[in-house]
Amino acid sequence: MALYRLIYVSQAIAGLEYRDLIEILQKSEFNNRRAGVTGMLSFGDSMFLQVLEGSRRAICETYNRILLDPRHTHAELIDFSEIDHRDFAIWSMKVLQLSNQEEVRNIILKYSHTETFSPISMTGLQSLNFLREITELYHKGAMDQ
Amino acid sequence: MALYRLIYVSQAIAGLEYRDLIEILQKSEFNNRRAGVTGMLSFGDSMFLQVLEGSRRAICETYNRILLDPRHTHAELIDFSEIDHRDFAIWSMKVLQLSNQEEVRNIILKYSHTETFSPISMTGLQSLNFLREITELYHKGAMDQ
Amino acid sequence: MALYRLIYVSQAIAGLEYRDLIEILQKSEFNNRRAGVTGMLSFGDSMFLQVLEGSRRAICETYNRILLDPRHTHAELIDFSEIDHRDFAIWSMKVLQLSNQEEVRNIILKYSHTETFSPISMTGLQSLNFLREITELYHKGAMDQ
Amino acid sequence: MALYRLIYVSQAIAGLEYRDLIEILQKSEFNNRRAGVTGMLSFGDSMFLQVLEGSRRAICETYNRILLDPRHTHAELIDFSEIDHRDFAIWSMKVLQLSNQEEVRNIILKYSHTETFSPISMTGLQSLNFLREITELYHKGAMDQ
Amino acid sequence: MALYRLIYVSQAIAGLEYRDLIEILQKSEFNNRRAGVTGMLSFGDSMFLQVLEGSRRAICETYNRILLDPRHTHAELIDFSEIDHRDFAIWSMKVLQLSNQEEVRNIILKYSHTETFSPISMTGLQSLNFLREITELYHKGAMDQ
Amino acid sequence: MALYRLIYVSQAIAGLEYRDLIEILQKSEFNNRRAGVTGMLSFGDSMFLQVLEGSRRAICETYNRILLDPRHTHAELIDFSEIDHRDFAIWSMKVLQLSNQEEVRNIILKYSHTETFSPISMTGLQSLNFLREITELYHKGAMDQ
Amino acid sequence: MALYRLIYVSQAIAGLEYRDLIEILQKSEFNNRRAGVTGMLSFGDSMFLQVLEGSRRAICETYNRILLDPRHTHAELIDFSEIDHRDFAIWSMKVLQLSNQEEVRNIILKYSHTETFSPISMTGLQSLNFLREITELYHKGAMDQ
Amino acid sequence: MALYRLIYVSQAIAGLEYRDLIEILQKSEFNNRRAGVTGMLSFGDSMFLQVLEGSRRAICETYNRILLDPRHTHAELIDFSEIDHRDFAIWSMKVLQLSNQEEVRNIILKYSHTETFSPISMTGLQSLNFLREITELYHKGAMDQ
Amino acid sequence: MALYRLIYVSQAIAGLEYRDLIEILQKSEFNNRRAGVTGMLSFGDSMFLQVLEGSRRAICETYNRILLDPRHTHAELIDFSEIDHRDFAIWSMKVLQLSNQEEVRNIILKYSHTETFSPISMTGLQSLNFLREITELYHKGAMDQ
Amino acid sequence: MALYRLIYVSQAIAGLEYRDLIEILQKSEFNNRRAGVTGMLSFGDSMFLQVLEGSRRAICETYNRILLDPRHTHAELIDFSEIDHRDFAIWSMKVLQLSNQEEVRNIILKYSHTETFSPISMTGLQSLNFLREITELYHKGAMDQ
Repeated sequence: MALYRLIYVSQAIAGLEYRDLIEILQKSEFNNRRAGVTGMLSFGDSMFLQVLEGSRRAICETYNRILLDPRHTHAELIDFSEIDHRDFAIWSMKVLQLSNQEEVRNIILKYSHTETFSPISMTGLQSLNFLREITELYHKGAMDQ
Repeated sequence: MALYRLIYVSQAIAGLEYRDLIEILQKSEFNNRRAGVTGMLSFGDSMFLQVLEGSRRAICETYNRILLDPRHTHAELIDFSEIDHRDFAIWSMKVLQLSNQEEVRNIILKYSHTETFSPISMTGLQSLNFLREITELYHKGAMDQ
Repeated sequence: MALYRLIYVSQAIAGLEYRDLIEILQKSEFNNRRAGVTGMLSFGDSMFLQVLEGSRRAICETYNRILLDPRHTHAELIDFSEIDHRDFAIWSMKVLQLSNQEEVRNIILKYSHTETFSPISMTGLQSLNFLREITELYHKGAMDQ
Repeated sequence: MALYRLIYVSQAIAGLEYRDLIEILQKSEFNNRRAGVTGMLSFGDSMFLQVLEGSRRAICETYNRILLDPRHTHAELIDFSEIDHRDFAIWSMKVLQLSNQEEVRNIILKYSHTETFSPISMTGLQSLNFLREITELYHKGAMDQ
Repeated sequence: MALYRLIYVSQAIAGLEYRDLIEILQKSEFNNRRAGVTGMLSFGDSMFLQVLEGSRRAICETYNRILLDPRHTHAELIDFSEIDHRDFAIWSMKVLQLSNQEEVRNIILKYSHTETFSPISMTGLQSLNFLREITELYHKGAMDQ
Repeated sequence: MALYRLIYVSQAIAGLEYRDLIEILQKSEFNNRRAGVTGMLSFGDSMFLQVLEGSRRAICETYNRILLDPRHTHAELIDFSEIDHRDFAIWSMKVLQLSNQEEVRNIILKYSHTETFSPISMTGLQSLNFLREITELYHKGAMDQ
Repeated sequence: MALYRLIYVSQAIAGLEYRDLIEILQKSEFNNRRAGVTGMLSFGDSMFLQVLEGSRRAICETYNRILLDPRHTHAELIDFSEIDHRDFAIWSMKVLQLSNQEEVRNIILKYSHTETFSPISMTGLQSLNFLREITELYHKGAMDQ
Repeated sequence: MALYRLIYVSQAIAGLEYRDLIEILQKSEFNNRRAGVTGMLSFGDSMFLQVLEGSRRAICETYNRILLDPRHTHAELIDFSEIDHRDFAIWSMKVLQLSNQEEVRNIILKYSHTETFSPISMTGLQSLNFLREITELYHKGAMDQ
Repeated sequence: MALYRLIYVSQAIAGLEYRDLIEILQKSEFNNRRAGVTGMLSFGDSMFLQVLEGSRRAICETYNRILLDPRHTHAELIDFSEIDHRDFAIWSMKVLQLSNQEEVRNIILKYSHTETFSPISMTGLQSLNFLREITELYHKGAMDQ
Repeated sequence: MALYRLIYVSQAIAGLEYRDLIEILQKSEFNNRRAGVTGMLSFGDSMFLQVLEGSRRAICETYNRILLDPRHTHAELIDFSEIDHRDFAIWSMKVLQLSNQEEVRNIILKYSHTETFSPISMTGLQSLNFLREITELYHKGAMDQ
């Protein structure tokens, strides 16, 4: 009855707009709160990188539902692990947009192949540390949104 | 002649009231002091999560007696380990009620499946870290009681 | 550019018949051979437990396609790990049906909660060792099919 | 949803007879088969040492019920651990009586304080290895019963 | 030619008085300084718990001599280990009496079965950490003597 | 003054023929024997995978010279590690051609993304184990050449 | 309530004869059987090396009594450790005399400074492995006595 | 799809001048930015020590190109490892010249055979720690350039 | 081409005077600087304890030369290990005389058998930690010279 | 009072003949037997590689004496370690000459830079494993002498 973490990457469809993100966020928050799922969704350069935390049952149901969303394609798992505690317990879901801010681009480069956000080139550990470092930047109020 | 720790979860019977908790506490303190048992009892959403520390003999006698108490059912062990030192040496028994305070709910969620207190979904390590973090909140004077 | 292993469990729809399994197998073998995916599918008591091995890209595409198959529901991930080598390199896909044979039931019980095949109660390690032990029984020619 | 193992020791009441053991065995086997509990019960010098394997829920319910049995007293936990697989998957419950056979007494002495069966002096690891070695002796057909 | 640490517990004879302790201390200091033995002796509730550090030869000679002292009985070893450095290098021997001060009783309870000083229930590690924590309390000037 | 191992992959130019391989082999053997370099070169599906063992100086000089050879392109390092002993001490250089033999294709698939020899998809450990397993097949006389 | 092992070395007084050894052995066997102590005593070149196994209480009482025996001097502890099981469970006490047999002298030299039996130069691990190897030689019937 | 680090050492040709370094730097920065390669180049006593970070493909292509540059010879690999994150993410390429400043010479000596910069005598770990310590000195503004 | 550390102890001849130490120091500094050897020499109670760091070749040549010096006898190695970095990089050679200062005697006692400087009773780790702690005292300016 | 192992390499003077080896051997055997030193000396291509085992005192005295022998120069330590038991307990000293036999040359190459015996290029571990493998070849009677 352990907790699990699932991280995946996917590609946004062309023409995805800001209000789509808002809608995704609101729907996620509602569903996740009911299911005890927490996490974070980063978005940049037409790519999504999302982490989900919760019971194995809940995050798998959430992931199965996410896969059906027509606003993204090419979903690929990056990490699926048993965890001792949640890292994102305060967020039912949080969306962070990755701007061209230098600090953001340096964090992207630190954990992947290029400055362009291509989380597909990350390992599980790299994606997790990327998400943690971006979150830290956000909490310091040093991230443009 | 080592020290042991036992953690269990159980379900309170319907209608359990505040004065029941007080009575449980007082009786526990008296029995435990005599037997060298220390620990903590957290209570919320009709569930108990209790940790007992002491000699193997003493905590097993205590647990056997607790199982007979008609005020709870469905007792289930979560952790039973040899330990190097007690974490709750200053308390013969302490009762902490889990309110709907946001900090408390976040700690619950951090270590279990939902915000509702369901310690049955915790592993041994998660229940121990939950109890430590709740205790820390209490000692900082930041916990509503 | 490592290899990955993905294990999931799902529930067969009511009325699934032997010819469905054959069809699943044949389609899987064709798709997997093209994509470099290897693995095994065990089936019993209306539950599937399947392991997929290959590049991260290939097994995720395969899993995404599997999720859309209407012949099963409640798919849940059990394991997703980077691996050093494939365990099932000789099978593009193999289907093993779990009969009521005593040896089979003992292996099920050894790694899960009951004799009824409920892989949902397995951890990642348990499901992997279960699949290995069942495969070994099959290779010894000691498994009824 | 892991598997757990629970080992406890207890003292038989005075006058416990062979037919009591048979009755305990038969009842255990029936209950355990239903609940997916497996294990072994060793008995000697008026002491019981029993191991239970299964889901956390099932072995705790079993243990709670065992504690109420008036035919033994002073039950004390020796081991409670998450396990990867069952060691006693082939036995819903097996009772092994410890005779004064030299091989049996040597195994008792190897893991405890004296030749008299006093499992209360064992650690968790010692009790588990004792049960395994006694089982091995039994399977070799070298144990008097 | 390594350094060793020896810890033992023993029971003071009835009627042991303060001047006996002083005499023990003075004789120990004289002998130990000559032999390169350092350490500490804690005394409370009629029990001694003493640690000796030095060459294997020197601490064994010291221990053999201590065993002959008629002022205590039931000496029992708790720890005998090779060490990288001395923890009590500044004391040829130091006697610390354990009062009923709350801080002292909490440290006793943290590492043993009851608040009464019964070092016989300690493991080697627990006795060492007890002695360190008591020493720390003494150095902070927070210990009644 | 340790030993090192270097493994790289590269792409053969179009039209590379058997006599080119022979020539590469003969030249390598001559150079390597002088420099104390040992190793093995596997070739299949227009790809090379080669391991070099020796002093750091010697294998780097060898690799630098290999890079200039116009018969291959896109050289990429896969492993460069300090080693305790050579695995290929009996070969100054050995060329093994990978046929379409089923055993060979299974070993390729076991350690890489597809049955086509694409060592570029291997990690350092996978390439090393691939080379060891292919060598073992060769020594058993079970490899078509 | 673990098991412990104690190993010590001491020097026999001048003129110790074979019948002294027999007497020591008989008395030890009687005392040890009662106390649940097992072990072995090796004797050679006027030195004793003895291992005792049992409860901490029992082996310390035994050691305290041994120290008072006037037939040896300069007793020095070599090992005192918690153990998982006894190595000498079949012997209440066994005396093995170390002759000048070449196999015996080689085992002595393998674990100490010279061919002369000087266990005082052994570490705890060396003395244990020496005793095990001598015992093995004895069980093979290859040791002169 | 992990990140890799490659460190090599090489010897500058006689007569290499400051403007050559500038040219190397500018060309590297341009190429590396495009390829997602980051790193640092230290130069002193006619020796280069350079670290490259990025995808395996990108740093190997970069290294292959570097080997062809006629301004250095005797290139030798020192480290090639998979890494979790880049250490030099903020630099597409940085050139640091090693002066005779005492702090610089002490860092050289700390990790190699002499005060003269001879990185050829470094192991992979030593070269990495050297580069990190030199970088730290530079960031503190305490390095002459 | 790693770095090594060598520590040895030796006995000064009778009548060694302060100017001998100065001469040893000056000669060492000159030789060591040329050879890339760094280290420290502690002297007290007619004993030397010296650490040498550098290439294996250089510290062995230095040690071979030191052995021929008639001002000391009974040289004995205490430590010879591969190291990642030098601890004494700032000293070609430093001589520290060990006075009767209490802090110095406490450090001696902490790592050896008696207050008299007898490094011959130290293990490799103890001698290294002794030298580090003495150096730290010196750098704090708290050491009498 | 542990055991130690010392391995060194040195260069034989020009013109060293077979009878010199015999003389070295005989003198070594005599001295070593008295001092409790065991070991092996391999000789080939004008290089010596020797291992010494015994008390720290004894092997250092032996090494100091060896260094003064005019029949070799450039002695360099390769390994100096505390050991649990001797590997060469049956030999006071054994001389093995390394011929051009293919098996011997392969073992040399397996652990060093070239087929020519240059133990100076070995690490401590490589030299130890080389000596063990050569000894094994000798014991199988498969080594030309």
